[in-house]
Amino acid sequence: MKRLKATIAYDGSGFAGYQIQPDSRTVQVELMKVLKTIHKGKVTQVVASGRTDAKVHATGQVIHFDTEFSIPMSGWLRALNVLLPEDIRVNSIEEVDASFHARYHTTGKTYRYKWDRSQIISPFTRNYMVHVKQPLDVDAMRAAAQALIGTHDFSSFCAANTAVVDKVRTIWRVEFEERGNELHMVIEGSGFLYNMVRIIAGTLTEVGMGRRKAEELSGIVAAADRDAAGKTAAAHGLYLETVMYQS
Amino acid sequence: MKRLKATIAYDGSGFAGYQIQPDSRTVQVELMKVLKTIHKGKVTQVVASGRTDAKVHATGQVIHFDTEFSIPMSGWLRALNVLLPEDIRVNSIEEVDASFHARYHTTGKTYRYKWDRSQIISPFTRNYMVHVKQPLDVDAMRAAAQALIGTHDFSSFCAANTAVVDKVRTIWRVEFEERGNELHMVIEGSGFLYNMVRIIAGTLTEVGMGRRKAEELSGIVAAADRDAAGKTAAAHGLYLETVMYQS
Repeated sequence: MKRLKATIAYDGSGFAGYQIQPDSRTVQVELMKVLKTIHKGKVTQVVASGRTDAKVHATGQVIHFDTEFSIPMSGWLRALNVLLPEDIRVNSIEEVDASFHARYHTTGKTYRYKWDRSQIISPFTRNYMVHVKQPLDVDAMRAAAQALIGTHDFSSFCAANTAVVDKVRTIWRVEFEERGNELHMVIEGSGFLYNMVRIIAGTLTEVGMGRRKAEELSGIVAAADRDAAGKTAAAHGLYLETVMYQS
Repeated sequence: MKRLKATIAYDGSGFAGYQIQPDSRTVQVELMKVLKTIHKGKVTQVVASGRTDAKVHATGQVIHFDTEFSIPMSGWLRALNVLLPEDIRVNSIEEVDASFHARYHTTGKTYRYKWDRSQIISPFTRNYMVHVKQPLDVDAMRAAAQALIGTHDFSSFCAANTAVVDKVRTIWRVEFEERGNELHMVIEGSGFLYNMVRIIAGTLTEVGMGRRKAEELSGIVAAADRDAAGKTAAAHGLYLETVMYQS
Protein backbone atom coordinates (compact mmCIF):
# COMPACT_ATOMS: atom_id res chain seq x y z
CA MET A 1 0.00 0.00 0.00
CA LYS A 2 1.30 3.42 -0.95
CA ARG A 3 0.16 6.79 0.34
CA LEU A 4 -0.02 9.53 -2.31
CA LYS A 5 -0.14 13.28 -1.68
CA ALA A 6 -1.57 15.47 -4.43
CA THR A 7 -1.82 19.22 -4.84
CA ILE A 8 -5.02 20.20 -6.60
CA ALA A 9 -6.72 23.33 -7.94
CA TYR A 10 -10.43 23.82 -8.42
CA ASP A 11 -12.82 26.47 -9.62
CA GLY A 12 -15.33 26.55 -6.77
CA SER A 13 -18.10 28.07 -8.94
CA GLY A 14 -19.64 24.74 -9.86
CA PHE A 15 -19.32 23.01 -6.50
CA ALA A 16 -21.36 22.90 -3.31
CA GLY A 17 -17.99 22.99 -1.54
CA TYR A 18 -15.24 20.47 -1.00
CA GLN A 19 -16.89 17.96 1.32
CA ILE A 20 -19.10 15.07 0.30
CA GLN A 21 -22.82 15.84 0.65
CA PRO A 22 -25.92 14.00 -0.47
CA ASP A 23 -27.24 15.07 -3.90
CA SER A 24 -24.63 17.76 -4.37
CA ARG A 25 -21.69 18.14 -6.71
CA THR A 26 -18.66 18.46 -4.45
CA VAL A 27 -14.93 18.24 -5.08
CA GLN A 28 -14.55 15.21 -2.80
CA VAL A 29 -17.32 13.33 -4.64
CA GLU A 30 -15.63 13.96 -8.00
CA LEU A 31 -12.25 12.84 -6.66
CA MET A 32 -13.72 9.67 -5.14
CA LYS A 33 -15.60 8.84 -8.35
CA VAL A 34 -12.38 9.00 -10.35
CA LEU A 35 -10.40 6.97 -7.80
CA LYS A 36 -13.16 4.36 -7.81
CA THR A 37 -12.85 4.10 -11.60
CA ILE A 38 -9.06 3.80 -11.42
CA HIS A 39 -9.33 1.17 -8.66
CA LYS A 40 -11.88 -0.82 -10.70
CA GLY A 41 -14.84 -0.18 -8.45
CA LYS A 42 -13.09 -0.21 -5.09
CA VAL A 43 -13.93 2.84 -2.97
CA THR A 44 -10.90 4.92 -1.95
CA GLN A 45 -11.12 7.47 0.84
CA VAL A 46 -9.70 10.93 0.13
CA VAL A 47 -8.49 13.18 2.91
CA ALA A 48 -8.04 16.93 2.28
CA SER A 49 -6.19 19.53 4.37
CA GLY A 50 -9.62 20.91 5.23
CA ARG A 51 -12.95 21.71 3.62
CA THR A 52 -13.73 24.73 1.53
CA ASP A 53 -17.26 26.14 1.27
CA ALA A 54 -19.48 26.40 -1.79
CA LYS A 55 -18.02 28.84 -4.38
CA VAL A 56 -14.63 28.99 -2.61
CA HIS A 57 -11.71 28.28 -4.95
CA ALA A 58 -8.43 26.48 -4.42
CA THR A 59 -5.14 26.87 -6.23
CA GLY A 60 -3.17 24.68 -3.80
CA GLN A 61 -5.47 22.35 -1.85
CA VAL A 62 -3.68 19.19 -0.65
CA ILE A 63 -5.21 15.72 -0.45
CA HIS A 64 -3.96 12.23 0.33
CA PHE A 65 -5.22 8.76 -0.48
CA ASP A 66 -3.93 5.20 -0.36
CA THR A 67 -3.53 2.86 -3.28
CA GLU A 68 -2.25 -0.64 -3.96
CA PHE A 69 -1.37 0.29 -7.53
CA SER A 70 2.21 0.71 -8.69
CA ILE A 71 1.79 3.31 -11.42
CA PRO A 72 4.58 5.88 -11.90
CA MET A 73 3.66 9.36 -10.65
CA SER A 74 3.53 10.76 -14.21
CA GLY A 75 0.92 8.09 -14.98
CA TRP A 76 -1.15 9.06 -11.95
CA LEU A 77 -1.00 12.73 -12.94
CA ARG A 78 -2.15 11.97 -16.46
CA ALA A 79 -4.86 9.50 -15.46
CA LEU A 80 -6.36 11.78 -12.83
CA ASN A 81 -6.42 14.81 -15.14
CA VAL A 82 -7.95 12.79 -17.98
CA LEU A 83 -10.70 11.41 -15.75
CA LEU A 84 -11.44 14.44 -13.57
CA PRO A 85 -13.83 17.17 -14.73
CA GLU A 86 -12.05 20.26 -16.11
CA ASP A 87 -12.87 22.38 -13.06
CA ILE A 88 -10.57 20.21 -10.91
CA ARG A 89 -6.92 19.78 -11.88
CA VAL A 90 -4.16 17.83 -10.16
CA ASN A 91 -1.00 19.94 -10.40
CA SER A 92 1.40 17.53 -8.72
CA ILE A 93 1.43 14.16 -7.03
CA GLU A 94 4.07 12.30 -5.04
CA GLU A 95 4.44 9.25 -2.85
CA VAL A 96 4.71 10.09 0.84
CA ASP A 97 5.37 8.18 4.02
CA ALA A 98 2.41 6.11 5.22
CA SER A 99 2.28 8.31 8.33
CA PHE A 100 1.58 11.49 6.32
CA HIS A 101 -1.86 12.98 6.93
CA ALA A 102 -3.16 15.84 4.75
CA ARG A 103 -5.39 17.19 7.53
CA TYR A 104 -3.67 16.43 10.83
CA HIS A 105 -0.15 17.34 9.78
CA THR A 106 -0.70 20.80 8.31
CA THR A 107 1.57 23.41 9.87
CA GLY A 108 0.06 26.43 8.13
CA LYS A 109 -2.07 27.71 5.28
CA THR A 110 -2.16 30.67 2.94
CA TYR A 111 -5.42 32.12 1.65
CA ARG A 112 -5.98 34.88 -0.89
CA TYR A 113 -9.06 37.09 -1.03
CA LYS A 114 -9.77 39.09 -4.22
CA TRP A 115 -11.78 42.26 -4.75
CA ASP A 116 -12.56 43.91 -8.10
CA ARG A 117 -12.76 47.69 -7.71
CA SER A 118 -13.89 48.45 -11.30
CA GLN A 119 -16.89 50.73 -11.65
CA ILE A 120 -18.51 48.04 -13.81
CA ILE A 121 -17.41 44.51 -12.97
CA SER A 122 -16.12 42.43 -15.84
CA PRO A 123 -18.37 39.49 -16.79
CA PHE A 124 -15.17 37.43 -16.72
CA THR A 125 -14.39 38.02 -13.04
CA ARG A 126 -17.91 37.86 -11.57
CA ASN A 127 -17.32 34.37 -10.09
CA TYR A 128 -13.70 35.03 -9.11
CA MET A 129 -13.62 38.38 -7.32
CA VAL A 130 -15.94 40.35 -5.12
CA HIS A 131 -17.10 43.61 -6.62
CA VAL A 132 -16.71 46.75 -4.50
CA LYS A 133 -17.60 49.97 -6.28
CA GLN A 134 -16.99 52.27 -3.33
CA PRO A 135 -13.33 53.41 -3.08
CA LEU A 136 -11.36 51.45 -0.48
CA ASP A 137 -8.74 53.03 1.76
CA VAL A 138 -6.15 50.27 1.40
CA ASP A 139 -3.71 51.93 3.83
CA ALA A 140 -6.39 51.83 6.53
CA MET A 141 -7.02 48.14 5.72
CA ARG A 142 -3.29 47.43 6.01
CA ALA A 143 -3.07 49.27 9.33
CA ALA A 144 -6.12 47.46 10.70
CA ALA A 145 -4.75 44.07 9.64
CA GLN A 146 -1.71 44.54 11.89
CA ALA A 147 -3.91 43.90 14.93
CA LEU A 148 -4.48 40.36 13.64
CA ILE A 149 -0.80 39.41 13.48
CA GLY A 150 0.32 37.14 16.30
CA THR A 151 -1.34 34.55 18.49
CA HIS A 152 -4.88 35.43 19.52
CA ASP A 153 -8.22 33.93 20.45
CA PHE A 154 -10.00 34.51 17.14
CA SER A 155 -13.55 33.91 18.43
CA SER A 156 -14.62 37.25 16.94
CA PHE A 157 -13.64 35.91 13.52
CA CYS A 158 -15.25 32.50 13.74
CA ALA A 159 -18.75 31.58 12.59
CA ALA A 160 -20.99 31.18 15.63
CA ASN A 161 -22.24 27.66 16.43
CA THR A 162 -19.03 25.91 15.49
CA ALA A 163 -17.95 22.83 17.42
CA VAL A 164 -14.30 23.90 17.72
CA VAL A 165 -13.38 24.72 21.31
CA ASP A 166 -9.86 26.07 21.04
CA LYS A 167 -10.06 29.24 18.99
CA VAL A 168 -6.48 30.34 19.47
CA ARG A 169 -4.59 30.60 16.19
CA THR A 170 -1.45 32.39 14.97
CA ILE A 171 -1.44 34.74 11.99
CA TRP A 172 2.02 35.38 10.54
CA ARG A 173 1.29 37.67 7.65
CA VAL A 174 -1.51 39.77 6.16
CA GLU A 175 -0.56 41.62 2.99
CA PHE A 176 -2.48 43.66 0.47
CA GLU A 177 -1.52 43.65 -3.20
CA GLU A 178 -2.95 46.11 -5.72
CA ARG A 179 -3.00 45.16 -9.39
CA GLY A 180 -4.89 47.86 -11.26
CA ASN A 181 -8.52 47.47 -10.22
CA GLU A 182 -7.80 44.22 -8.40
CA LEU A 183 -7.10 44.20 -4.68
CA HIS A 184 -5.80 41.01 -3.10
CA MET A 185 -5.39 40.17 0.58
CA VAL A 186 -2.88 37.40 1.29
CA ILE A 187 -3.16 35.91 4.75
CA GLU A 188 -0.93 33.24 6.23
CA GLY A 189 -1.19 31.51 9.56
CA SER A 190 -0.97 28.33 11.58
CA GLY A 191 -4.59 27.49 10.95
CA PHE A 192 -7.96 29.10 10.36
CA LEU A 193 -11.35 28.78 12.05
CA TYR A 194 -14.58 28.29 10.13
CA ASN A 195 -15.24 31.41 7.98
CA MET A 196 -12.26 33.16 9.59
CA VAL A 197 -10.72 34.57 6.40
CA ARG A 198 -14.10 35.70 5.10
CA ILE A 199 -14.99 37.46 8.38
CA ILE A 200 -11.55 39.12 8.37
CA ALA A 201 -12.07 40.18 4.72
CA GLY A 202 -15.54 41.49 5.52
CA THR A 203 -14.37 43.44 8.58
CA LEU A 204 -11.42 44.92 6.70
CA THR A 205 -13.74 45.89 3.80
CA GLU A 206 -15.75 47.92 6.32
CA VAL A 207 -12.52 49.59 7.45
CA GLY A 208 -11.63 50.30 3.80
CA MET A 209 -15.05 51.90 3.27
CA GLY A 210 -14.61 54.09 6.36
CA ARG A 211 -17.41 52.41 8.30
CA ARG A 212 -14.99 51.26 10.98
CA LYS A 213 -11.68 52.72 12.11
CA ALA A 214 -8.41 50.80 11.77
CA GLU A 215 -7.82 51.30 15.51
CA GLU A 216 -10.98 49.34 16.35
CA LEU A 217 -9.44 46.06 15.23
CA SER A 218 -7.52 45.26 18.40
CA GLY A 219 -10.71 45.80 20.40
CA ILE A 220 -12.62 43.52 18.05
CA VAL A 221 -10.01 40.78 18.54
CA ALA A 222 -10.07 41.28 22.35
CA ALA A 223 -13.89 41.06 22.48
CA ALA A 224 -13.70 37.38 21.46
CA ASP A 225 -17.29 37.75 20.25
CA ARG A 226 -18.51 37.15 16.69
CA ASP A 227 -20.88 40.11 16.96
CA ALA A 228 -17.95 42.49 17.42
CA ALA A 229 -16.59 41.82 13.92
CA GLY A 230 -18.01 42.75 10.50
CA LYS A 231 -19.98 40.80 7.94
CA THR A 232 -18.74 37.56 6.40
CA ALA A 233 -17.41 38.50 2.95
CA ALA A 234 -18.71 36.57 -0.07
CA ALA A 235 -17.32 33.09 -0.73
CA HIS A 236 -16.36 33.54 -4.38
CA GLY A 237 -13.52 35.97 -3.59
CA LEU A 238 -11.67 33.36 -1.52
CA TYR A 239 -8.83 31.06 -2.65
CA LEU A 240 -7.01 28.38 -0.65
CA GLU A 241 -3.52 28.98 -1.99
CA THR A 242 -0.98 26.93 -0.02
CA VAL A 243 -1.04 24.22 2.61
CA MET A 244 2.17 23.79 4.59
CA TYR A 245 3.57 20.62 6.19
CA GLN A 246 6.70 19.93 8.16
CA SER A 247 9.31 18.97 5.61
CA MET B 1 -37.18 58.82 -30.72
CA LYS B 2 -33.52 58.50 -29.79
CA ARG B 3 -30.97 56.00 -31.07
CA LEU B 4 -28.56 54.69 -28.45
CA LYS B 5 -25.24 52.95 -29.09
CA ALA B 6 -23.86 50.73 -26.32
CA THR B 7 -20.58 48.88 -25.92
CA ILE B 8 -21.08 45.59 -24.13
CA ALA B 9 -18.98 42.71 -22.79
CA TYR B 10 -20.16 39.15 -22.28
CA ASP B 11 -18.78 35.87 -21.06
CA GLY B 12 -19.82 33.54 -23.88
CA SER B 13 -19.65 30.40 -21.69
CA GLY B 14 -23.31 30.47 -20.74
CA PHE B 15 -24.75 31.47 -24.10
CA ALA B 16 -25.77 29.67 -27.27
CA GLY B 17 -24.24 32.64 -29.08
CA TYR B 18 -25.33 36.23 -29.63
CA GLN B 19 -28.30 35.80 -31.91
CA ILE B 20 -31.86 35.08 -30.85
CA GLN B 21 -32.78 31.39 -31.18
CA PRO B 22 -35.80 29.43 -30.01
CA ASP B 23 -35.38 27.78 -26.58
CA SER B 24 -31.80 28.96 -26.15
CA ARG B 25 -30.18 31.45 -23.84
CA THR B 26 -28.57 34.02 -26.12
CA VAL B 27 -27.16 37.50 -25.54
CA GLN B 28 -29.74 39.13 -27.81
CA VAL B 29 -32.61 37.48 -25.93
CA GLU B 30 -31.29 38.74 -22.60
CA LEU B 31 -30.85 42.28 -23.97
CA MET B 32 -34.35 42.29 -25.46
CA LYS B 33 -35.88 40.99 -22.22
CA VAL B 34 -34.34 43.84 -20.25
CA LEU B 35 -35.33 46.49 -22.82
CA LYS B 36 -38.87 45.13 -22.78
CA THR B 37 -38.95 45.55 -18.99
CA ILE B 38 -37.57 49.10 -19.22
CA HIS B 39 -40.10 49.95 -21.96
CA LYS B 40 -42.98 48.56 -19.89
CA GLY B 41 -43.70 45.59 -22.11
CA LYS B 42 -42.98 47.14 -25.50
CA VAL B 43 -40.61 45.04 -27.61
CA THR B 44 -37.43 46.87 -28.66
CA GLN B 45 -35.25 45.55 -31.44
CA VAL B 46 -31.53 45.34 -30.78
CA VAL B 47 -28.98 45.42 -33.59
CA ALA B 48 -25.40 44.22 -32.97
CA SER B 49 -22.28 44.73 -35.09
CA GLY B 50 -22.53 41.03 -35.92
CA ARG B 51 -23.24 37.71 -34.27
CA THR B 52 -20.85 35.69 -32.19
CA ASP B 53 -21.10 31.92 -31.90
CA ALA B 54 -21.81 29.83 -28.82
CA LYS B 55 -18.95 30.11 -26.25
CA VAL B 56 -17.37 33.08 -28.05
CA HIS B 57 -16.72 36.04 -25.74
CA ALA B 58 -16.93 39.78 -26.30
CA THR B 59 -15.12 42.58 -24.54
CA GLY B 60 -16.25 45.28 -26.98
CA GLN B 61 -19.37 44.22 -28.90
CA VAL B 62 -21.46 47.19 -30.11
CA ILE B 63 -25.25 47.32 -30.27
CA HIS B 64 -27.86 49.94 -31.06
CA PHE B 65 -31.53 50.31 -30.21
CA ASP B 66 -34.18 53.02 -30.34
CA THR B 67 -36.09 54.42 -27.40
CA GLU B 68 -38.68 57.09 -26.73
CA PHE B 69 -37.45 57.52 -23.16
CA SER B 70 -35.50 60.56 -22.05
CA ILE B 71 -33.34 59.09 -19.33
CA PRO B 72 -29.79 60.48 -18.89
CA MET B 73 -27.05 58.15 -20.13
CA SER B 74 -25.83 57.45 -16.57
CA GLY B 75 -29.36 56.26 -15.77
CA TRP B 76 -29.40 53.95 -18.79
CA LEU B 77 -26.03 52.50 -17.81
CA ARG B 78 -27.18 51.82 -14.26
CA ALA B 79 -30.59 50.44 -15.23
CA LEU B 80 -29.20 48.08 -17.85
CA ASN B 81 -26.48 46.73 -15.54
CA VAL B 82 -28.94 46.24 -12.68
CA LEU B 83 -31.40 44.35 -14.88
CA LEU B 84 -29.00 42.35 -17.07
CA PRO B 85 -27.57 39.02 -15.89
CA GLU B 86 -24.02 39.29 -14.56
CA ASP B 87 -22.49 37.60 -17.60
CA ILE B 88 -23.44 40.61 -19.77
CA ARG B 89 -22.24 44.10 -18.83
CA VAL B 90 -22.81 47.41 -20.57
CA ASN B 91 -19.55 49.35 -20.38
CA SER B 92 -20.69 52.55 -22.08
CA ILE B 93 -23.73 54.03 -23.75
CA GLU B 94 -24.28 57.21 -25.77
CA GLU B 95 -26.88 58.84 -27.96
CA VAL B 96 -26.05 58.70 -31.66
CA ASP B 97 -27.51 60.08 -34.85
CA ALA B 98 -30.66 58.30 -36.01
CA SER B 99 -28.76 57.19 -39.12
CA PHE B 100 -26.18 55.19 -37.11
CA HIS B 101 -26.34 51.43 -37.70
CA ALA B 102 -24.29 49.06 -35.51
CA ARG B 103 -24.06 46.45 -38.26
CA TYR B 104 -24.02 48.28 -41.57
CA HIS B 105 -21.68 51.07 -40.59
CA THR B 106 -18.79 49.07 -39.12
CA THR B 107 -15.46 49.98 -40.72
CA GLY B 108 -13.39 47.32 -38.97
CA LYS B 109 -13.13 44.88 -36.09
CA THR B 110 -10.47 43.54 -33.77
CA TYR B 111 -10.58 39.99 -32.44
CA ARG B 112 -8.32 38.31 -29.90
CA TYR B 113 -7.67 34.57 -29.74
CA LYS B 114 -6.15 33.09 -26.55
CA TRP B 115 -4.16 29.91 -26.02
CA ASP B 116 -2.97 28.53 -22.68
CA ARG B 117 0.34 26.69 -23.06
CA SER B 118 0.58 25.39 -19.47
CA GLN B 119 1.34 21.70 -19.11
CA ILE B 120 -1.77 21.42 -16.94
CA ILE B 121 -4.48 23.93 -17.76
CA SER B 122 -5.78 26.01 -14.89
CA PRO B 123 -9.39 25.26 -13.92
CA PHE B 124 -9.87 29.03 -14.00
CA THR B 125 -9.04 29.47 -17.68
CA ARG B 126 -10.71 26.36 -19.12
CA ASN B 127 -13.62 28.39 -20.58
CA TYR B 128 -11.48 31.35 -21.61
CA MET B 129 -8.42 29.96 -23.41
CA VAL B 130 -7.67 26.99 -25.59
CA HIS B 131 -5.22 24.55 -24.09
CA VAL B 132 -2.24 23.52 -26.24
CA LYS B 133 0.29 21.34 -24.46
CA GLN B 134 2.61 20.87 -27.43
CA PRO B 135 5.23 23.66 -27.72
CA LEU B 136 4.27 26.27 -30.33
CA ASP B 137 6.81 27.92 -32.62
CA VAL B 138 5.45 31.45 -32.27
CA ASP B 139 7.98 32.90 -34.73
CA ALA B 140 6.70 30.51 -37.39
CA MET B 141 3.11 31.55 -36.56
CA ARG B 142 4.10 35.22 -36.90
CA ALA B 143 5.81 34.59 -40.22
CA ALA B 144 2.84 32.61 -41.54
CA ALA B 145 0.39 35.33 -40.50
CA GLN B 146 2.14 37.84 -42.78
CA ALA B 147 0.57 36.10 -45.79
CA LEU B 148 -2.85 37.12 -44.48
CA ILE B 149 -2.11 40.86 -44.35
CA GLY B 150 -3.69 42.82 -47.18
CA THR B 151 -6.77 42.44 -49.35
CA HIS B 152 -7.52 38.85 -50.33
CA ASP B 153 -10.32 36.50 -51.22
CA PHE B 154 -10.56 34.68 -47.88
CA SER B 155 -12.65 31.72 -49.13
CA SER B 156 -10.08 29.33 -47.63
CA PHE B 157 -10.85 30.81 -44.22
CA CYS B 158 -14.61 30.84 -44.42
CA ALA B 159 -16.94 28.10 -43.22
CA ALA B 160 -18.30 26.23 -46.24
CA ASN B 161 -22.02 26.64 -47.01
CA THR B 162 -22.21 30.30 -46.11
CA ALA B 163 -24.53 32.60 -48.03
CA VAL B 164 -21.98 35.41 -48.38
CA VAL B 165 -20.88 35.83 -52.00
CA ASP B 166 -18.11 38.41 -51.77
CA LYS B 167 -15.34 36.88 -49.72
CA VAL B 168 -12.80 39.62 -50.24
CA ARG B 169 -11.71 41.24 -46.99
CA THR B 170 -8.73 43.30 -45.82
CA ILE B 171 -6.58 42.33 -42.85
CA TRP B 172 -4.49 45.18 -41.44
CA ARG B 173 -2.72 43.56 -38.56
CA VAL B 174 -2.03 40.13 -37.04
CA GLU B 175 0.07 40.23 -33.89
CA PHE B 176 1.10 37.63 -31.35
CA GLU B 177 1.54 38.54 -27.69
CA GLU B 178 3.16 36.20 -25.18
CA ARG B 179 2.31 36.60 -21.49
CA GLY B 180 3.93 33.76 -19.62
CA ASN B 181 2.01 30.64 -20.61
CA GLU B 182 -0.63 32.68 -22.43
CA LEU B 183 -0.37 33.28 -26.15
CA HIS B 184 -2.70 35.82 -27.73
CA MET B 185 -3.30 36.52 -31.41
CA VAL B 186 -4.72 39.98 -32.13
CA ILE B 187 -6.20 40.34 -35.60
CA GLU B 188 -7.66 43.49 -37.09
CA GLY B 189 -9.37 43.98 -40.41
CA SER B 190 -12.15 45.55 -42.42
CA GLY B 191 -14.47 42.64 -41.75
CA PHE B 192 -14.48 38.92 -41.11
CA LEU B 193 -16.26 36.00 -42.75
CA TYR B 194 -18.08 33.30 -40.80
CA ASN B 195 -15.55 31.38 -38.66
CA MET B 196 -12.69 33.30 -40.30
CA VAL B 197 -10.72 34.11 -37.14
CA ARG B 198 -11.16 30.57 -35.80
CA ILE B 199 -9.99 28.98 -39.07
CA ILE B 200 -7.00 31.35 -39.12
CA ALA B 201 -6.24 30.46 -35.47
CA GLY B 202 -6.56 26.76 -36.23
CA THR B 203 -4.33 26.94 -39.30
CA LEU B 204 -1.69 28.98 -37.46
CA THR B 205 -1.82 26.49 -34.55
CA GLU B 206 -0.88 23.77 -37.05
CA VAL B 207 2.02 25.95 -38.23
CA GLY B 208 3.08 26.47 -34.61
CA MET B 209 3.04 22.71 -34.04
CA GLY B 210 5.18 22.12 -37.12
CA ARG B 211 2.43 20.29 -39.03
CA ARG B 212 2.44 22.97 -41.74
CA LYS B 213 5.18 25.30 -42.91
CA ALA B 214 4.85 29.09 -42.62
CA GLU B 215 5.54 29.35 -46.36
CA GLU B 216 2.39 27.35 -47.13
CA LEU B 217 0.11 30.17 -46.04
CA SER B 218 0.20 32.22 -49.23
CA GLY B 219 -0.72 29.08 -51.19
CA ILE B 220 -3.59 28.39 -48.80
CA VAL B 221 -4.92 31.92 -49.31
CA ALA B 222 -4.52 31.62 -53.11
CA ALA B 223 -6.37 28.27 -53.20
CA ALA B 224 -9.61 30.04 -52.15
CA ASP B 225 -10.81 26.65 -50.91
CA ARG B 226 -11.86 25.87 -47.33
CA ASP B 227 -10.22 22.43 -47.59
CA ALA B 228 -6.82 24.03 -48.09
CA ALA B 229 -6.79 25.59 -44.59
CA GLY B 230 -6.55 23.94 -41.18
CA LYS B 231 -9.15 23.03 -38.59
CA THR B 232 -11.50 25.57 -37.05
CA ALA B 233 -10.06 26.39 -33.63
CA ALA B 234 -12.34 26.09 -30.59
CA ALA B 235 -14.86 28.87 -29.94
CA HIS B 236 -14.00 29.55 -26.30
CA GLY B 237 -10.58 31.06 -27.14
CA LEU B 238 -12.16 33.85 -29.22
CA TYR B 239 -12.97 37.41 -28.10
CA LEU B 240 -14.62 40.20 -30.11
CA GLU B 241 -12.55 43.09 -28.82
CA THR B 242 -13.31 46.25 -30.81
CA VAL B 243 -15.80 47.35 -33.42
CA MET B 244 -14.82 50.40 -35.44
CA TYR B 245 -17.09 53.02 -37.05
CA GLN B 246 -16.37 56.13 -39.07
CA SER B 247 -16.11 58.93 -36.56
